[in-house]
Amino acid sequence: MRNFKLTIEYDGTLFNGWQRQGQGERTVQGELETLLAKIFKVESVSVIASGRTDSGVHAQGQVAHVKAETRMKPSELHKALTAWSPKDIAIVKVQEVDLDFHAQYSVKSKTYRYTILNRPYPSALLRHQVLFFPYKLNITAMRRAAKLFIGLHDFKSFQAYDKLRADKTTVRTIKKLTVTQQDDLILIDITADGFLYKMVRNITGLLLEVGRGQRHSEEVLKLLKAKDRTQSAKTAPAEGLSLLKVLY
Amino acid sequence: MRNFKLTIEYDGTLFNGWQRQGQGERTVQGELETLLAKIFKVESVSVIASGRTDSGVHAQGQVAHVKAETRMKPSELHKALTAWSPKDIAIVKVQEVDLDFHAQYSVKSKTYRYTILNRPYPSALLRHQVLFFPYKLNITAMRRAAKLFIGLHDFKSFQAYDKLRADKTTVRTIKKLTVTQQDDLILIDITADGFLYKMVRNITGLLLEVGRGQRHSEEVLKLLKAKDRTQSAKTAPAEGLSLLKVLY
Repeated sequence: MRNFKLTIEYDGTLFNGWQRQGQGERTVQGELETLLAKIFKVESVSVIASGRTDSGVHAQGQVAHVKAETRMKPSELHKALTAWSPKDIAIVKVQEVDLDFHAQYSVKSKTYRYTILNRPYPSALLRHQVLFFPYKLNITAMRRAAKLFIGLHDFKSFQAYDKLRADKTTVRTIKKLTVTQQDDLILIDITADGFLYKMVRNITGLLLEVGRGQRHSEEVLKLLKAKDRTQSAKTAPAEGLSLLKVLY
Repeated sequence: MRNFKLTIEYDGTLFNGWQRQGQGERTVQGELETLLAKIFKVESVSVIASGRTDSGVHAQGQVAHVKAETRMKPSELHKALTAWSPKDIAIVKVQEVDLDFHAQYSVKSKTYRYTILNRPYPSALLRHQVLFFPYKLNITAMRRAAKLFIGLHDFKSFQAYDKLRADKTTVRTIKKLTVTQQDDLILIDITADGFLYKMVRNITGLLLEVGRGQRHSEEVLKLLKAKDRTQSAKTAPAEGLSLLKVLY
């Protein structure tokens, strides 16, 4: 038995998220498992990712592992996957790893990027990859709020409730959270040891309300203390979100 | 009667080019003319662009003009167009201009960008906006060839034949032609006082053959002299090409 680590880019627009669902639902995991079963000439394979991504969320550096009895070299597997993948999935890298490497359990940190187009009119070319946000944003206030998220906190106020996804602990460590302006684009990059369900989109929602002046940046501290989702901001939409990289 | 200058971004993927065609063919001009006739409450309007773009070609800064009897301010027209445009068309700017401004005849120069993804595997997120080119390219040789195109020349060898589009003169002036590398991306930016049919794609095709070592950069001079399309390189595909800006 061998274990392969796959680094995967995908355009989430036409997928119903990462995780395999029922028949007729197109998912990244579903497409890759079907394809890899054909490549390895087996009935079925399991492709385990670092974590799920929601419907519409993209990835530049999702990581997954797949185990198989095969003599293929990683470079041969990369070529086969590149040849047969649908056009909205691209395989960035294939590496052979130890059998105990687990794409989800071995994660050290993950980085997401949320991209906001901040100008009065939308973009035709970037429409699937940015959140169009035409209102004036106070970047300095957003950066002040961003700093208050950094460190070990209970992020319960920023977790979307989902009984299937409820984590045992809602404590996570945000290692980095930056707000960068590049012309009309505002990039929110957030690195943590792990994320609760919709945590990136809920933090982004709050940063946008701070940027618009609807909340004071100091409210972050109050919300972290409150451990109550209902007091927090609106969840930002999936468009604009991409899983940039996963470290092990 | 008033004259409006529109600066337009579009994603060419789902359009059959700029120019209005027969029924059932979706074109940028067709969409805008239908929309503007509704906004101006008239039977039909003519939207004249700086030039046509082929099927699949994008624009960040296409320019067009439209004349109408209206009391709308440019900002009101911008808002109406933004509200009603299909998502793959975005209106960047609306300005009122003199009645003698003509988007095609008044052009001083146009700049196109051809974007090449030069790595062994394709991109899911950029797939509609780049040409995936996995072969090693000699950028220095491409730059040497690019320099030889600059200036006033007869570009007959780089014109695709089309009796409907045959220009009276095939002499044009290339003002700037640069080859820039940004990580995996190679950008070919080309500015001229005008372009012959498929000229950018034919020049790019030649630069790619030079980059792969299939032709020597000096051949540019020979081809310019030959005035014979059949001796020249393959036309590069439409994907990857975008009309960046038009100057008046």
